[in-house]
Amino acid sequence: MKHSFGSDNHSGAAPEIMQAIIDANREFQVAYGEDEYTTAAIKTFKKVMGEEAIPFFVFNGTGANILALKALTKSYNSILCPENAHINVDECGAPENITGAKLIPLPANNGKVSPAQVKRELKGFGFQHHSQPKVLSISQPTELGTLYTPGEIKELADLMHAHNGYLHVDGSRISNAAASLGLPIKKFITDQGVDALSFGGTKNGLLIGEAVIFFREELAENFQYIRKQGAQLFSKNRFIAAQFDAFLKDGLNIRLASHSNAMAKYLQSELKDIKDVIITRPVETNVVFARISNELCEKLMKKHYFYVWDEESGEVRWMCSFNTTKEDIDNFVQDIKSIL
Amino acid sequence: MKHSFGSDNHSGAAPEIMQAIIDANREFQVAYGEDEYTTAAIKTFKKVMGEEAIPFFVFNGTGANILALKALTKSYNSILCPENAHINVDECGAPENITGAKLIPLPANNGKVSPAQVKRELKGFGFQHHSQPKVLSISQPTELGTLYTPGEIKELADLMHAHNGYLHVDGSRISNAAASLGLPIKKFITDQGVDALSFGGTKNGLLIGEAVIFFREELAENFQYIRKQGAQLFSKNRFIAAQFDAFLKDGLNIRLASHSNAMAKYLQSELKDIKDVIITRPVETNVVFARISNELCEKLMKKHYFYVWDEESGEVRWMCSFNTTKEDIDNFVQDIKSIL
Amino acid sequence: MKHSFGSDNHSGAAPEIMQAIIDANREFQVAYGEDEYTTAAIKTFKKVMGEEAIPFFVFNGTGANILALKALTKSYNSILCPENAHINVDECGAPENITGAKLIPLPANNGKVSPAQVKRELKGFGFQHHSQPKVLSISQPTELGTLYTPGEIKELADLMHAHNGYLHVDGSRISNAAASLGLPIKKFITDQGVDALSFGGTKNGLLIGEAVIFFREELAENFQYIRKQGAQLFSKNRFIAAQFDAFLKDGLNIRLASHSNAMAKYLQSELKDIKDVIITRPVETNVVFARISNELCEKLMKKHYFYVWDEESGEVRWMCSFNTTKEDIDNFVQDIKSIL
Amino acid sequence: MKHSFGSDNHSGAAPEIMQAIIDANREFQVAYGEDEYTTAAIKTFKKVMGEEAIPFFVFNGTGANILALKALTKSYNSILCPENAHINVDECGAPENITGAKLIPLPANNGKVSPAQVKRELKGFGFQHHSQPKVLSISQPTELGTLYTPGEIKELADLMHAHNGYLHVDGSRISNAAASLGLPIKKFITDQGVDALSFGGTKNGLLIGEAVIFFREELAENFQYIRKQGAQLFSKNRFIAAQFDAFLKDGLNIRLASHSNAMAKYLQSELKDIKDVIITRPVETNVVFARISNELCEKLMKKHYFYVWDEESGEVRWMCSFNTTKEDIDNFVQDIKSIL
Repeated sequence: MKHSFGSDNHSGAAPEIMQAIIDANREFQVAYGEDEYTTAAIKTFKKVMGEEAIPFFVFNGTGANILALKALTKSYNSILCPENAHINVDECGAPENITGAKLIPLPANNGKVSPAQVKRELKGFGFQHHSQPKVLSISQPTELGTLYTPGEIKELADLMHAHNGYLHVDGSRISNAAASLGLPIKKFITDQGVDALSFGGTKNGLLIGEAVIFFREELAENFQYIRKQGAQLFSKNRFIAAQFDAFLKDGLNIRLASHSNAMAKYLQSELKDIKDVIITRPVETNVVFARISNELCEKLMKKHYFYVWDEESGEVRWMCSFNTTKEDIDNFVQDIKSIL
Repeated sequence: MKHSFGSDNHSGAAPEIMQAIIDANREFQVAYGEDEYTTAAIKTFKKVMGEEAIPFFVFNGTGANILALKALTKSYNSILCPENAHINVDECGAPENITGAKLIPLPANNGKVSPAQVKRELKGFGFQHHSQPKVLSISQPTELGTLYTPGEIKELADLMHAHNGYLHVDGSRISNAAASLGLPIKKFITDQGVDALSFGGTKNGLLIGEAVIFFREELAENFQYIRKQGAQLFSKNRFIAAQFDAFLKDGLNIRLASHSNAMAKYLQSELKDIKDVIITRPVETNVVFARISNELCEKLMKKHYFYVWDEESGEVRWMCSFNTTKEDIDNFVQDIKSIL
Repeated sequence: MKHSFGSDNHSGAAPEIMQAIIDANREFQVAYGEDEYTTAAIKTFKKVMGEEAIPFFVFNGTGANILALKALTKSYNSILCPENAHINVDECGAPENITGAKLIPLPANNGKVSPAQVKRELKGFGFQHHSQPKVLSISQPTELGTLYTPGEIKELADLMHAHNGYLHVDGSRISNAAASLGLPIKKFITDQGVDALSFGGTKNGLLIGEAVIFFREELAENFQYIRKQGAQLFSKNRFIAAQFDAFLKDGLNIRLASHSNAMAKYLQSELKDIKDVIITRPVETNVVFARISNELCEKLMKKHYFYVWDEESGEVRWMCSFNTTKEDIDNFVQDIKSIL
Repeated sequence: MKHSFGSDNHSGAAPEIMQAIIDANREFQVAYGEDEYTTAAIKTFKKVMGEEAIPFFVFNGTGANILALKALTKSYNSILCPENAHINVDECGAPENITGAKLIPLPANNGKVSPAQVKRELKGFGFQHHSQPKVLSISQPTELGTLYTPGEIKELADLMHAHNGYLHVDGSRISNAAASLGLPIKKFITDQGVDALSFGGTKNGLLIGEAVIFFREELAENFQYIRKQGAQLFSKNRFIAAQFDAFLKDGLNIRLASHSNAMAKYLQSELKDIKDVIITRPVETNVVFARISNELCEKLMKKHYFYVWDEESGEVRWMCSFNTTKEDIDNFVQDIKSIL
């Protein structure tokens, strides 16, 4: 398939990432993260995210989310999240299954929850019949590609801390957030009081790999056991670590994400005069949501790969990747115009 | 590190495997296993293992084992295994945690359990206080590098089936077994009544990747949900599938395993006249166990990487890889001789 | 405390129940349900609920609910329920913890869910990222004391069966439903296609005891292990069984529930002319919900025990028991009038 | 059945216990342990066990054990116990299922484990592949009716504390231990450094009820949620509390246990001259183990109820209750003699 708007995990690995893998494939290395590539990548992570950041490498985004949440909770806790959070709708119940805790879905506006919405569920403390609220998990960017400002993140972190709780950020596309905000990730994550971050790689050009980052030592203390028990410890971890090192050490992640963001912006601008395509969400990162007719949708799907986001409203999702080209978008827009 | 006897996961990826990854890194592919590489690899697996084989790709060996076991059990079941099984001693309690079931360790001779030993724990059926025995999990080769004959596997499978149970095989080095037995894997797994197999790749030259193979449709039926909930579903699965396809389609797995087996045999033969090195286990695959003095052990560890297997008895483990060379072994034996 | 409107579990055991316990306290009986009282009570249950009913005794309502749900699900399933269901808000996350599955809360009208609301979540079948919908759990009477008609229960059961799923009924006050509907429980549970029922005793005058009733043999088949593993198997089960036998064999349960229902009706009628007390829900069983001013609430709480149901709206709950008397209600209404 | 040697839970409730239940059945009481009987029973427990004791009431022994263990562990821990521990062989895998942790069975001599045996498994600390040892769980008396001395308990507690771990005692017959040792429970539990105790009631004459006692505030801190989520919180808790209050406040527990202990001693003495009955274990509490021929066993079982403990060796178990009489034993011994 020449191009897909289906997801940013439909693309392969960026060339620089592939080269890092090839380079790491020499000699013997001790397994399970005791290799020199892992040591180097941890150092790079600390440079990018702050010295207090404690990174752990894992295989995939679901793994990152559920193990981070397990480290933050006991089974009698509850985890608040937007109703459309990946952990709530796309992980086949893994968060409940692995943490043993309860998810409480919150109404969300364009994917974002407000402090007021969170506050409404910060209740029942000390009441033994009620799952004790402990973690708020948000996505940055959200499932709808929108962004929290650093101030909004701080406000949510402060709110949770005031209730003896934690803020977890699902950052499966965290580099897209950084590229769009024009800020180092540290500025809107570490510095705003986030307690744990799922740091995404695969959707931004890695072949494979995600990381869980803790910002408090006591949360990281026993995470190696949680990761092993959760089957997310990689024997040949050098191959994930080498990718992350190449990804982060000189801003490759931002360059790749800037490009996919720019492609979404370009798509938005090319669509803006087509009145039968209604952009439904602010385009803040690498995705465009739109409402189109069923007829257009069906015809377009014969030529291009993408997903219907909401059957009822006819909303579709077009996701751009690090290797989406202007030409891909021009062809796509041209095809829309031809159909209409 | 130029060479390690620590584990066969201290080596990297075989060149043919790396090439397969590079080749798969083109264009866009649908994620989560709906790509053409996964389709091809499934076909190849069926050719190698029999049409009844139903393969699922996962990230790592612990993932393969625990999810296979989850598919075979309910939480009130028990899982019998040799006391030194990987699932019993090396997975940080993941099997109990993920299945919710009980592990019952059996005494093992050179890593193998006998039907008589298994039978002793096939009891308490219908007694509500007793975890109901359901699965026997063995390793082929065993944790000590020894092998079950096809007939022994059949006997264990028959025994479990006679008790309405299953036989699971942890085959993290299954290709080493095949190479040593001189038999296609199908002959001693599929054809002997094994119900589920953890098929190893990483320890035999893959960069990353394992597979769970079911041999009964009803076991595979809902495994996609178990895998997703278990955080072992890879978005860019083409990269695991392409490796397995290259690994299996023309016998690369057997060639790689034959080499590592041969290196262990060579090591054994080179050691046989050194009376201070006592080989402790039959050398049947790619590993040599030996008893040496603490003094020799300490000095040797300064030059070579390997693990002490049993502190009390002074038993050590030397594992050979697909890329261990005769020269690596000659150097090693030479160093032993120099120390002695 | 002379009387409480706090809950129907604030009362003790009915005299007939206490006598049954005293009578059962003689001689020795085999433990864990192999006693003659359990045999007799099972027979009585079958007479009342139909021969297809398969009862299991447990300690409490949470135990009944979570173990019934565990028997009906696998961990990758989801359980739909009204958002204010006891299993969703009052069991400290036990359903998720014990089943490993996901709860999906549905909007509810006066505690009831409609087929249309359920249908909206019967989706994602075969999609591996989505918890597979399997069980609808409703309460009869609902948490708000309202009732489903037999036809409504049938419609929900049919809907679930059409999707290869089950209907579970939390019947912690099922006898109140029967008394109010003027129907044997069998008529609106067994005969309408309910698959599993949590049959309540404690809130209707038992000292202790609930039952899980399955209406399909395959669901009951392994429940003894689920119950034991769930720590809900009573060694001296004769003492729960004897209570249920006395409760059910000649309609004591209906007499006790009719009385508590009548008390709620009486309370409603006595309040109807007091314009500062607004009855907020249909009074269909043994509870009255009302909206009163904070001031009235505070003053009334000094003299009577009851709970605020919803802090925001000022709604309170007054629950009647088998041993609530007309005098208790007259005093209560008199005190309201005095305060106003 | 006039008498049973099957188990001490084959007997009913002691008369004083039944009276306490009857007395508690008056008026209304707030549910879930906020009643005056629970307050009183907690006070009594503290008087008996020391002010540092923090008791929680639960339904049954399995519930007490698994929730205590859950409070003491995280899922990546292991729990050491004698191989014949109730938690290892008689709870249908509930400990693993509820804690998510691993059980490690230790060889046991007459039911007891030695510090040396425990030490052998106190290993792998900091090694991420290994379940981290955290709790030793012993039974006092053991499953074979034998006793640890206070000094032995202290030694085990010290050993666990030296490894940053805990000692849990399954005291389902703890009053039999106290009666036999001639010591207040406090002297050999609280004062020896035990961290958590499952305090048994049902097997010593209660109708229903057990307690979990913690001896460190931090372990008790969140136990109310663990208990609720574990479905072991009783709404009408006054009925368990009232029993325990009557049981403990003036030594009824010791009187009842002394009697059952004495009956076992009497049985032992009456059997000592019968050479075909070989007493196999020290008779230290209320149980006699013996080896008899299959023929004797079968004939005896036609007249008396008891269990075969070990099919292979022909060992049987005769358990005495608070209401076993001399006459019961005389009849039993007489029947043995008649058969022989």
